[in-house]
Amino acid sequence: MAYYKLPEKATRKFVEDLYEGYGFTRQQAIDIADVLLMADLYGIESHGIQRLIRYHDGIQEGLICPKAEPVITHETKLSAVIDAKMAMGQVVSKMAMQMAIDKAKEHGFGAVVVNHSNHYGIAGYYTRMAVEQDMMGFCFTNTEAIAIPTNGKNAMLGTNPIAFGMPADPTPFLYDVATTVVPRGKLEVYNKKGAPLPMGWVVDANGLDTTNAGEVIQNIINKAGGGILPIGGSSEATGSHKGYGLGAIVEILTAIMAGGVTSNHVSHCGNGDTSEAFWAIDYGMFGDKATMRKNCSVLLEELRNSAKAEGQTRIYTHGEKELESTQEKLRDGLPANEKTIGEMQKIGATVGINFEDYFGKVID
Amino acid sequence: MAYYKLPEKATRKFVEDLYEGYGFTRQQAIDIADVLLMADLYGIESHGIQRLIRYHDGIQEGLICPKAEPVITHETKLSAVIDAKMAMGQVVSKMAMQMAIDKAKEHGFGAVVVNHSNHYGIAGYYTRMAVEQDMMGFCFTNTEAIAIPTNGKNAMLGTNPIAFGMPADPTPFLYDVATTVVPRGKLEVYNKKGAPLPMGWVVDANGLDTTNAGEVIQNIINKAGGGILPIGGSSEATGSHKGYGLGAIVEILTAIMAGGVTSNHVSHCGNGDTSEAFWAIDYGMFGDKATMRKNCSVLLEELRNSAKAEGQTRIYTHGEKELESTQEKLRDGLPANEKTIGEMQKIGATVGINFEDYFGKVID
Repeated sequence: MAYYKLPEKATRKFVEDLYEGYGFTRQQAIDIADVLLMADLYGIESHGIQRLIRYHDGIQEGLICPKAEPVITHETKLSAVIDAKMAMGQVVSKMAMQMAIDKAKEHGFGAVVVNHSNHYGIAGYYTRMAVEQDMMGFCFTNTEAIAIPTNGKNAMLGTNPIAFGMPADPTPFLYDVATTVVPRGKLEVYNKKGAPLPMGWVVDANGLDTTNAGEVIQNIINKAGGGILPIGGSSEATGSHKGYGLGAIVEILTAIMAGGVTSNHVSHCGNGDTSEAFWAIDYGMFGDKATMRKNCSVLLEELRNSAKAEGQTRIYTHGEKELESTQEKLRDGLPANEKTIGEMQKIGATVGINFEDYFGKVID
Repeated sequence: MAYYKLPEKATRKFVEDLYEGYGFTRQQAIDIADVLLMADLYGIESHGIQRLIRYHDGIQEGLICPKAEPVITHETKLSAVIDAKMAMGQVVSKMAMQMAIDKAKEHGFGAVVVNHSNHYGIAGYYTRMAVEQDMMGFCFTNTEAIAIPTNGKNAMLGTNPIAFGMPADPTPFLYDVATTVVPRGKLEVYNKKGAPLPMGWVVDANGLDTTNAGEVIQNIINKAGGGILPIGGSSEATGSHKGYGLGAIVEILTAIMAGGVTSNHVSHCGNGDTSEAFWAIDYGMFGDKATMRKNCSVLLEELRNSAKAEGQTRIYTHGEKELESTQEKLRDGLPANEKTIGEMQKIGATVGINFEDYFGKVID
């Protein structure tokens, strides 16, 4: 599929105007655009403008509500529970993470959980909010079920990502990974190429290892059994129980703590049904922050500088790739394929904004 | 190697008397025995009485100090930093976890970090302390370096386990795993059998995949390069960066927060040099505890009851195997091989206690 580059500034303006067109306030639209564009800047296309169409559909179906007013249903000094009332995930999540950060600023620790929410973009956006306010941040979410428990054949847990951020120089430590081996999007890439999947990514409807991407995708859609494996693959010998357990921990920290539904009961592709957790820790509770930040920077530098495996030229620490990608894309533009551009043209028109007014003629 | 079964009660008495013989108080000896025996009861032999010899050597070398008096060097309402002063890991760790739990009881959250400590047994002991006081618990430790960063060839991170516990019925959720694919002990088992390792467990001195256990063990001992891979193996395609990042997070939460040394600088096999973190969360900060506990129990039951892969008969939730093993071993005794029994005889004699007085004649 042909790819084009969209300038970051124009894309941001387009997304902001689009969301204002849906009925969000200008500030909400700015926040939503900021979360979405961070994904594209990081090079995580699946969570950026490529996903505008899915959010659009959710809004049309009434499962993402621009006028929703999230309600705090429980609160202590250190914690809060928010009923998102099916708000846009990015809107309620920014609010929840800032609330956790404010609690941490005052008391050292803040944990805010959210129920009845929607897909919130990249988990790493929220931990980076904490990092930018010199806090340590954690973020977790459940999703609709797609991950197979060790020895199982039915999807029971979500991709259930874990995000963590810690300030460091010159690059903060920014970790954001699904607790499955790969996200669903990766299967689709292999399927389009007709290439066999690496072993250890997925199982078939009987719970057995397979390399057939198309079959697994169909089974997921039809809820016919099978799905994506947890980090560690299908067997305890390769650590399957380790990834499966991480997925279960995320389920406990989100759905169970927020009083929401667990991934195996999430419906409507997760729209209006997911639970999230946002934690901030003022690491000053353990001593002098400048010293700890410096020590963390040294650790990360030592990792990067350590000896490379034969054939490898670089060891990354988490967050480096994303920040380098950001520099590149601010300069060269955000990659968008023709399908995404077509979707942007179509959904822009539904709120009366014209793609070409922002980008000119992108496709000849 | 021949295995024998030692009665739990006699073993506990032996270990308590042994540690009192080393100069620990009776209460400290009781605590140490409790941590060690939980490992044997759980079926984690590597962390139970098999390790008595290593602790013995540490005490003889003056790196584990029976008379050490750990000092609280920093404290807030929610947190504390403890300098273990090279105390026995189990002694300072029980103290630290109880301190975190007490802070959580009063304020909702408690986090206590420890530096200059020693190997503390199974991480899951401390999270179970939290669970038994109806709290959620986390526990992390660094170790001497043994894990390879993605694209690297030198060990830079420890096995860096993550333990988590959450109350549930009939079985709590008890997660305790190294962030490496396997612990070093597994390599030794394959080496003794002369069997090739599964791919994705280790790399050789050049950072390349290998199945040769003996070579890797020698390289680890000689610090010649190579070592154990993080969860996810050697390549990003199988999620290597996910496990590598978890190991780095544990390093940040322990060594960096405690002001200790990171795994790549830990010396003396970790004796007197490791850092730990103990967190307790009163999950009542999110609402009615009975409801959350029930919801968690339902989630775990649904996981266990979900459809099995072809050829599989059971899906476990974390903690089940350990508690079933405990029942069996309380009934049948703790497995000990002849090498361990020989070590117990020898080290018992050094403090004037006689193995046969506790167990009779075990080996004909």
